[in-house]
Amino acid sequence: MTIMFLKRWLVGDPLKSTQAADERLSKTLALAIFSSNAISSVAYATEEILLVLILAGTAAVAWSIPISFAILFLVVVLTISYRQIIYEYPEGGGAYIVARNNIGELPALIAAGALMIDYVLTVAVSVAAGIAALTSAVPSLFEHRVAIGLTAIIFIIIMNLRGVRESGKFFAVPTYFAIGALGVMVAVGGIQALLGQAAPASADPQTTVEDLTLFLILRAFAAGCSAVTGMEVVSNGVKSFRRPEAENASTTMIYMSLILAALFMGISFLASHYAILPKADETIVSQLARLTFGAGALYYALQIGTMLLLVLAANSAFAGFPHLASILARDGYMPRQMATFGDRLVFSNGVVILGIFACFLLVLFHGDTHALIPLYAVGVFISFTLSQSGMVRRWLTKKGPHWRKSLIVNGAGAVITGIATIILASTKFTQGAWIVFLLIFILVLMFRSIHSHYKAVTEQISLTRDHRPPIPQRNIVIIPISGVDQAVIRAVDYARSRPGEIHAVMVDVDMQATARIQIQWAQWGCGVNLRALPSPYRSVMKSLLDYIEQILEKEPDIWVTVVIPEILPAHWWQSILHNQRALFLKTALLFKDRVILIDVPFHLKR
Amino acid sequence: MTIMFLKRWLVGDPLKSTQAADERLSKTLALAIFSSNAISSVAYATEEILLVLILAGTAAVAWSIPISFAILFLVVVLTISYRQIIYEYPEGGGAYIVARNNIGELPALIAAGALMIDYVLTVAVSVAAGIAALTSAVPSLFEHRVAIGLTAIIFIIIMNLRGVRESGKFFAVPTYFAIGALGVMVAVGGIQALLGQAAPASADPQTTVEDLTLFLILRAFAAGCSAVTGMEVVSNGVKSFRRPEAENASTTMIYMSLILAALFMGISFLASHYAILPKADETIVSQLARLTFGAGALYYALQIGTMLLLVLAANSAFAGFPHLASILARDGYMPRQMATFGDRLVFSNGVVILGIFACFLLVLFHGDTHALIPLYAVGVFISFTLSQSGMVRRWLTKKGPHWRKSLIVNGAGAVITGIATIILASTKFTQGAWIVFLLIFILVLMFRSIHSHYKAVTEQISLTRDHRPPIPQRNIVIIPISGVDQAVIRAVDYARSRPGEIHAVMVDVDMQATARIQIQWAQWGCGVNLRALPSPYRSVMKSLLDYIEQILEKEPDIWVTVVIPEILPAHWWQSILHNQRALFLKTALLFKDRVILIDVPFHLKR
Repeated sequence: MTIMFLKRWLVGDPLKSTQAADERLSKTLALAIFSSNAISSVAYATEEILLVLILAGTAAVAWSIPISFAILFLVVVLTISYRQIIYEYPEGGGAYIVARNNIGELPALIAAGALMIDYVLTVAVSVAAGIAALTSAVPSLFEHRVAIGLTAIIFIIIMNLRGVRESGKFFAVPTYFAIGALGVMVAVGGIQALLGQAAPASADPQTTVEDLTLFLILRAFAAGCSAVTGMEVVSNGVKSFRRPEAENASTTMIYMSLILAALFMGISFLASHYAILPKADETIVSQLARLTFGAGALYYALQIGTMLLLVLAANSAFAGFPHLASILARDGYMPRQMATFGDRLVFSNGVVILGIFACFLLVLFHGDTHALIPLYAVGVFISFTLSQSGMVRRWLTKKGPHWRKSLIVNGAGAVITGIATIILASTKFTQGAWIVFLLIFILVLMFRSIHSHYKAVTEQISLTRDHRPPIPQRNIVIIPISGVDQAVIRAVDYARSRPGEIHAVMVDVDMQATARIQIQWAQWGCGVNLRALPSPYRSVMKSLLDYIEQILEKEPDIWVTVVIPEILPAHWWQSILHNQRALFLKTALLFKDRVILIDVPFHLKR
Repeated sequence: MTIMFLKRWLVGDPLKSTQAADERLSKTLALAIFSSNAISSVAYATEEILLVLILAGTAAVAWSIPISFAILFLVVVLTISYRQIIYEYPEGGGAYIVARNNIGELPALIAAGALMIDYVLTVAVSVAAGIAALTSAVPSLFEHRVAIGLTAIIFIIIMNLRGVRESGKFFAVPTYFAIGALGVMVAVGGIQALLGQAAPASADPQTTVEDLTLFLILRAFAAGCSAVTGMEVVSNGVKSFRRPEAENASTTMIYMSLILAALFMGISFLASHYAILPKADETIVSQLARLTFGAGALYYALQIGTMLLLVLAANSAFAGFPHLASILARDGYMPRQMATFGDRLVFSNGVVILGIFACFLLVLFHGDTHALIPLYAVGVFISFTLSQSGMVRRWLTKKGPHWRKSLIVNGAGAVITGIATIILASTKFTQGAWIVFLLIFILVLMFRSIHSHYKAVTEQISLTRDHRPPIPQRNIVIIPISGVDQAVIRAVDYARSRPGEIHAVMVDVDMQATARIQIQWAQWGCGVNLRALPSPYRSVMKSLLDYIEQILEKEPDIWVTVVIPEILPAHWWQSILHNQRALFLKTALLFKDRVILIDVPFHLKR
């Protein structure tokens, strides 16, 4: 009772199926929900590029501008090619669906596994970066960052269990606030830079740790690729948009890309202009904001906005992960219960599982963004490549109007994201990306074994021409008793409610007790026959099992129903004081094919 | 299957009730089983006395002789007064029974709680001291003492689960070997001392930490009282002796006391004669043996014997604890299942619980005898005092032949053990004995609340004159289905095996699926009616529950039987892929009074 009440209070009342249409999202809400993942990465992407380049000394930092342009190019390519997916798959075209429909099972499962891992990483990285924004402004909170991160994730889980639309409303305000604050910073900073404001006293010259090699530049590019993660989210959620779904989703995707591109390039340029270098205890964005706004209210507003944007960006994974899991469950690659709607028309199971794994990662990596980054983005780029390749295959097979143009767009997308994937995988492999590959491998194995299990079950339980409707059999009801009380009489009452053969049995361990029970039975037994079983081994259980065995030996086709009078205590902790015998009996009879157990509970009041 | 086989292999085949008489013990076996507890304490009792006295400097050690005489006096008093208990309670007269019969419930429960705690401590202290004997001889094993101790306890548990007689045989050889070895040491050492062998170069003079106060001497006495723990064990187990039980038990008790007294006094005298002082890394007995035998084979034989005696002494607690627990369970102060005989006619539950708590203590106190000693013996002395007081009350009420003599014996016993209890409690209180008092308090609360729960249950389920045999009611059988397969047809087959109203119900979430199932049902449904329930909330569960609710609203007195087709996977880890819905349904319907759930399992082969 209490748990149900708590659940209602936390996640709200259940919704009717017919209310589902009202849950559709306007473009404004959809942009807040689906784009926070992609846009929030501007808070750390530039910093991750600089963190790699700085290894080759202060001069190498100049490479951040060409690398940023390369990433801008990726944003453009992904936007154009994903718009085609949105129109082709208005029911929601994640990499899994596109790959499954056009290439085959194995690539589809690889895409699904890769995406699942990246959803978990998105939550962990975003929350970690959000906490970094907070601790840049309030350094004293640094030591509590893991606890703060866990609190944030749990908060997001509860919000998501409340349902899609509420999440949209709840998350729209801070998302737009943060986008606005970052936009103002980039604009003001840009104007100041154009007006010729000089860079502050330059930081100390950095020690050169590595040579500036092509590999290092590619590593910096790979680290920066975290900026484009989350761009696929809109295409997964087309179904959630108001009609016309594809039009609205496509427009939303373009807005998202524009905001992402503007903020990312702005921050990269300003960081380069003011020669800002990464610090252990303050983020690049925080340094930039301090420089632009001073350490006043505007600075703090921006830090809070960035933090909220990042922490809430995790929310887009909470929309995507359970959705993907439910599609996989529907296809038999995940446990069936992942496919069931929760009360609030969201996929509660997926929400909870994602939250647990993200918390686990956050604790494992001590809430450190930089430690998580090498694992990040690899999975997303694998799924980018697979979905673009799927589209290429689709155009080659389907050949609709303008198919050559479409083929070129997705073909270019496939080649470019493919190259990026190879760069990411090769530069990050030894730094942790191998874990991602291993996990993808394990997930694919898991998907396949679940699938083959369900297939085996279907084969075993399906009805074929060889089956005939069963011929009705006799059903003997046995009520084991060890005394005469209300619980026993209730069980007898239940058993008598359908006609047929019934008898109570008791095990004779003590002659006096047996005689006493037989006398009581004459009064209370409702005419049901009572048998006393001998017990040479002093074991009540063994005598009962032997008795049932004998019945089945005589007539192997009959059903034996064992009705157990069970006392249900008023409080769960009293259970240890009851029903040990019933538990033993259930365990012993579980694998007897024609024996069915029935508990008739007697509820205690105190 | 595998677990059953493993169990058989470890604990042997079950025994018939009629074999119980054969399980009776000869005096020789009984002495080994029941006296190892008391006799083994000679391995540490002298050392614990010296460890306290040494705090007041080397000169204070001389007090060990008068203290040893005081303890010898206790041994004599306890032997005489416990013999009277043996004759008065041939069915086994533990402190709990004597106190319950003669004084009242509360003292009886205090005695029971005190004894239970001391049983656990006996196991922990004995095993710790046994390991100390081993590491005195082989110092390199010192760091592994906790692991060795745990292994020993687990070994004893398995041996005990094999049954009483096997335990006796198994333990008799090392017990007698150890008694013999210690006896030879005391004899040889005594002769050498009489022949005037000088003490070795005296140890370094000790720093005086405390003054030699009366309190310190009493503390030393309290520490030495660990020597008499276990003397009550024989009186608890009179029933296990061959006929005439009381005679045999009484004789065994006298032998035990003589051996205990001889060895304890011998070791105390020799330690005093040779001025042996406690060392951190070697026991007193080990030092004494090295002095008497040299570091040869005889020395190692004695250390091994002492170790075996101590480790096996724990075994007497494994006889006593489950016995006490079963008596308490029979009286309704412990969970009922503690009263059931295991396969091997021993009280398996009690054996396992005692073992777990002892392992816990051993780990908590790092296997250190000296750390455990302040908790030890207090409980035993409380139970000594209560049982002697109970006997005093008994003689005053019963007044049989020679009652005055008997009264004086038990009266003296009560007064002397009472004084000893006060000394133990007051000197050890701040050092850890307060934990024992707290635990006794908690245990007594637990006993009473279990008792009052069982009493409340009896009141709630017992049949009175106001009850009438129930009038038979209708029973509607509902089979919830979501498809047509062999598992469903099996459930239908079972339901049809008894006449009456049956219908299958399905929840209509998808019109096409519903239509398909209805067509299949026409072929396979065996003529059972199928109803499609509407599902406005998209929740299968809610629709089903509402339907059942409606039936019960119309006719509150009828039974509703819900037959659930359940798929039982071939491997337990596949369970997560099945039956989530059945589980939800069971949880939801558990508290509906007139709704009975039946699982009809369909066993998968792979």
